[in-house]
Amino acid sequence: MAKIRISQAVQRRLEKARVARLATVNAQGQPHIVPICFVLDRAIFYTAIDRKPKQVAPEKLRRVRNIAATGRAALLFDEYSEDWSRLWFVLVHGRARLVTSASERKRAIQMLRKKYRQYARGMLEEDSVVIRIVVERTTAWGRI
Amino acid sequence: MAKIRISQAVQRRLEKARVARLATVNAQGQPHIVPICFVLDRAIFYTAIDRKPKQVAPEKLRRVRNIAATGRAALLFDEYSEDWSRLWFVLVHGRARLVTSASERKRAIQMLRKKYRQYARGMLEEDSVVIRIVVERTTAWGRI
Repeated sequence: MAKIRISQAVQRRLEKARVARLATVNAQGQPHIVPICFVLDRAIFYTAIDRKPKQVAPEKLRRVRNIAATGRAALLFDEYSEDWSRLWFVLVHGRARLVTSASERKRAIQMLRKKYRQYARGMLEEDSVVIRIVVERTTAWGRI
Repeated sequence: MAKIRISQAVQRRLEKARVARLATVNAQGQPHIVPICFVLDRAIFYTAIDRKPKQVAPEKLRRVRNIAATGRAALLFDEYSEDWSRLWFVLVHGRARLVTSASERKRAIQMLRKKYRQYARGMLEEDSVVIRIVVERTTAWGRI
């Protein structure tokens, strides 16, 4: 795996961010976006299918099916401000897959629970589906 | 064109929103996301390539090239909150294309200038590239 360098300024933005938007694509090329909670572990992002109410079972969620089908993902980090001189975003292109290793899943869930205290209250089960996104490329724009 | 019904509650969220995240896809199926300013005119969204600093000419921007290549788009509207019982999002699937009609472009630019006073200060030129996204389907989640 190629090592990705993320600048310190971008890294700080990514570590501070509480929400990201994840785009995936199905086999027919249709994009899908969803807001996600996440953690960043060097150049790997983890996000889990938690217990916020869902209309379908985790494995039937569009993001999970899209990742299984194509593995393509983009993550956007940004904050809107009415002062447009303050705008910034970081776009991450990566490869996504479902985590199958039990130890990797456990570690990702521990990191998620540490970052989001909301997860401590039974919102994130031990056997949650965890998505892993390996960073391939980042683009930064604006006041980083 | 099929008429899309958007519920009043969803419509209110979309009209109030100041920012959306636009996902597009290139011919190879790679997704891209960018935060956008937009207006909603019944079931059509408009967004323009404005004069916020860009690294390349408007027609070379990834979103513009992706739309020319595939026309596929998804728009996400959401607001993050640490109180997860307040979370919501609206996902819009649509078909995107560049506006070629001068009158439609003019009207979209007028609407954008009316919604965002930042645009009044020379940030949005008369001949800006305008993207039109026709809503095909919406999905709402959470506290709408």
